[in-house]
Amino acid sequence: MSASVSPLAPTDVPEMPAIAGVKLATAAAGIRYKGRTDVLLAVMDKGTTVAGVFTKSKCPSAPVEWCRAKLSRGQARALVVNSGNANAFTGKTGKQSTALTAQTAAKAVGCSTGDVFLASTGVIGEPLDATKFDGVLATLAEAATPDHWTDAAKAIMTTDTFPKVATATVKLGKAKVTINGMAKGAGMIMPDMATMLSFVFTDAPLSSAVLQSLLKSGVEDTFNAITIDSDTSTSDTLLAFATGTAAAGGAPKISRASDPRLKAFAKAFHGVLANLAEQVARDGEGARKLVEVIVEGATTKNSARKIAMSIANSPLVKTAIAGEDANWGRVVMAVGKAGEPANRDKLSISFNGIRVAKSGARDPSYNEAEVSEAMKNPKIQIKVALGLGKGRDRVLTCDLTKEYVAINGDYRS
Amino acid sequence: MSASVSPLAPTDVPEMPAIAGVKLATAAAGIRYKGRTDVLLAVMDKGTTVAGVFTKSKCPSAPVEWCRAKLSRGQARALVVNSGNANAFTGKTGKQSTALTAQTAAKAVGCSTGDVFLASTGVIGEPLDATKFDGVLATLAEAATPDHWTDAAKAIMTTDTFPKVATATVKLGKAKVTINGMAKGAGMIMPDMATMLSFVFTDAPLSSAVLQSLLKSGVEDTFNAITIDSDTSTSDTLLAFATGTAAAGGAPKISRASDPRLKAFAKAFHGVLANLAEQVARDGEGARKLVEVIVEGATTKNSARKIAMSIANSPLVKTAIAGEDANWGRVVMAVGKAGEPANRDKLSISFNGIRVAKSGARDPSYNEAEVSEAMKNPKIQIKVALGLGKGRDRVLTCDLTKEYVAINGDYRS
Repeated sequence: MSASVSPLAPTDVPEMPAIAGVKLATAAAGIRYKGRTDVLLAVMDKGTTVAGVFTKSKCPSAPVEWCRAKLSRGQARALVVNSGNANAFTGKTGKQSTALTAQTAAKAVGCSTGDVFLASTGVIGEPLDATKFDGVLATLAEAATPDHWTDAAKAIMTTDTFPKVATATVKLGKAKVTINGMAKGAGMIMPDMATMLSFVFTDAPLSSAVLQSLLKSGVEDTFNAITIDSDTSTSDTLLAFATGTAAAGGAPKISRASDPRLKAFAKAFHGVLANLAEQVARDGEGARKLVEVIVEGATTKNSARKIAMSIANSPLVKTAIAGEDANWGRVVMAVGKAGEPANRDKLSISFNGIRVAKSGARDPSYNEAEVSEAMKNPKIQIKVALGLGKGRDRVLTCDLTKEYVAINGDYRS
Repeated sequence: MSASVSPLAPTDVPEMPAIAGVKLATAAAGIRYKGRTDVLLAVMDKGTTVAGVFTKSKCPSAPVEWCRAKLSRGQARALVVNSGNANAFTGKTGKQSTALTAQTAAKAVGCSTGDVFLASTGVIGEPLDATKFDGVLATLAEAATPDHWTDAAKAIMTTDTFPKVATATVKLGKAKVTINGMAKGAGMIMPDMATMLSFVFTDAPLSSAVLQSLLKSGVEDTFNAITIDSDTSTSDTLLAFATGTAAAGGAPKISRASDPRLKAFAKAFHGVLANLAEQVARDGEGARKLVEVIVEGATTKNSARKIAMSIANSPLVKTAIAGEDANWGRVVMAVGKAGEPANRDKLSISFNGIRVAKSGARDPSYNEAEVSEAMKNPKIQIKVALGLGKGRDRVLTCDLTKEYVAINGDYRS
């Protein structure tokens, strides 16, 4: 945990409504940090469906493997999340820890272990002592209530400086349904998947296949389009739960992703993911600037994504932004190293709407004072026009500051 | 230029011998920095052959395009290098600058413009005023002498904290031949190609095709196996010149890369490249630790290279090293994100010969105090054994410190 809140933290934190069928409780189990909550238990009603997307790391954490194995059942009753220890690279002990945690949770909630989903975040390589959950989860299951959303988001934080929540209300058929989400993650953030942990809940009656389809298409331009430091966690987990309780209020049951009644919901769902993903970028370790990279005129969207990521992950671009320097030369460098089709002499580059370079050279109207003033803004948009085709993409990142180095050079000890 | 010399600078700087047929001179042309040399002219005897490898950037600098176009002629009489301005992303002006510089040099040396090779390093996107070379190059051509190798290496520095030279003497046939090299580069360093600028000279009588073959095979495990910050320059240039003057002393003329008489020379040539490449890693911007990443047991050498680069480029691994933290969890993360075959439960990881993890978990014999002591060493070796096959590779990098951010957050202004 960092002492001071990111200057990029959202100022309009929403009131989180209850979602029928979801109860939350948090506790301080002393996993790693003293005097702060580090366990979240979410208890879901019977009939809750589940979907998930995970890190593409070849060395995933034990909880990721647990969730992947249980997902095919498509149903969930409990989610246990701890911060402070990722239970990653912990060998057989890691697997035993997940099994023991799930057993403890299943007993507390009164469900099968296959209905328990797990996520852990924190230090890698240290065994997680799952006996610490003994008793704690039973107490939490009794204490769980429909509110506490922000407390829940706080319990899953590690180096985050603020809790991340988002909510949306939308019509499904003629009924009102709600989507609540939370996320954590401030470092080791890079697509495939992106944020370390995020959980989204809704009372909409969606089949697990529909939920999975919404997640899969939803992450592409949200969590997979942010990067803090190009490092991909072993623990990235995004789970979505649908209690279906809105069916009682007349919401139609949706079992096909192509169902036209899903359209407004899908849009709202995407909005919640986008909101949470942006908050993660805003809480990048040591960040002082939110950086939006837009690449247009690429040969394809995929090519635009690769170039945008090359820019967003370039340490030289990120340090220039930290220094409030509109260093388009480094942007050219990052375009060039992406390996994607680009023609130097067709490139145009803008910072916050001010074009600094066109046709492969400095813009003749370039005004240093005007650009310098614009670079003081806490939000910086870098727009690159390649002039080759119609491919366009957008990614979010943050600047690279000395604080990033300080946070990560003294994290474990 | 940085005020203080890297703590990783070599202590045994070689005396650089003369190479018959090569004369050097430097000057302060006021390209960017005041009161320091920023132009190098190397004049080579008639009959000098040339070879080169360059950045794979899709947005290369004007001098890179100039050299590529002239390389097929295979002969060189002059090399002009300036620091302070990269003449990159300068549009038509950049092309005009290279043509004017080459004309000025050709006139000064008395050769064709096609025999002039150019390299520029420094800020990107600013027009290079080639009229500044007017007069300067003529004076340098007259002043050039066979010594001044270290002065030459100093003239091409930008954020480097020490000049980088290397030399080797070796038998070719029964004659003694010499190889001298210099390099510059401290940031924006990443394979394909690697160092921003490096120039190697020999008196051996080698055809340009032989020289090109030596370069191509030589860079793979030297300049292409180092990374400072994952950023690839638009200007990366490695040129080799062979004056052939040793033929007068009995050295055989070599025109086939497979000639067995070339063996010892090829080894020495590779040694000079490796020496220079390591110096570049040692002068990584803000570096306090030289980091050697060895990956073995991968399915192929190429797979080992990708995993080693993933580790070497990970900001989280690099900041951990800066913090003298043997954070093997981040190494696992970097292995996992490389996307190459890896089995978490077969991984072993050592820091400076001390195994900290085996079989996918912390080594039972792990001793925090012992490892912490080892991490204080200025050279850190991270060895990862994957246990899958025989693929092995090694790359060099450095740690990521607050000084890197300071240097690059305030470079242009």
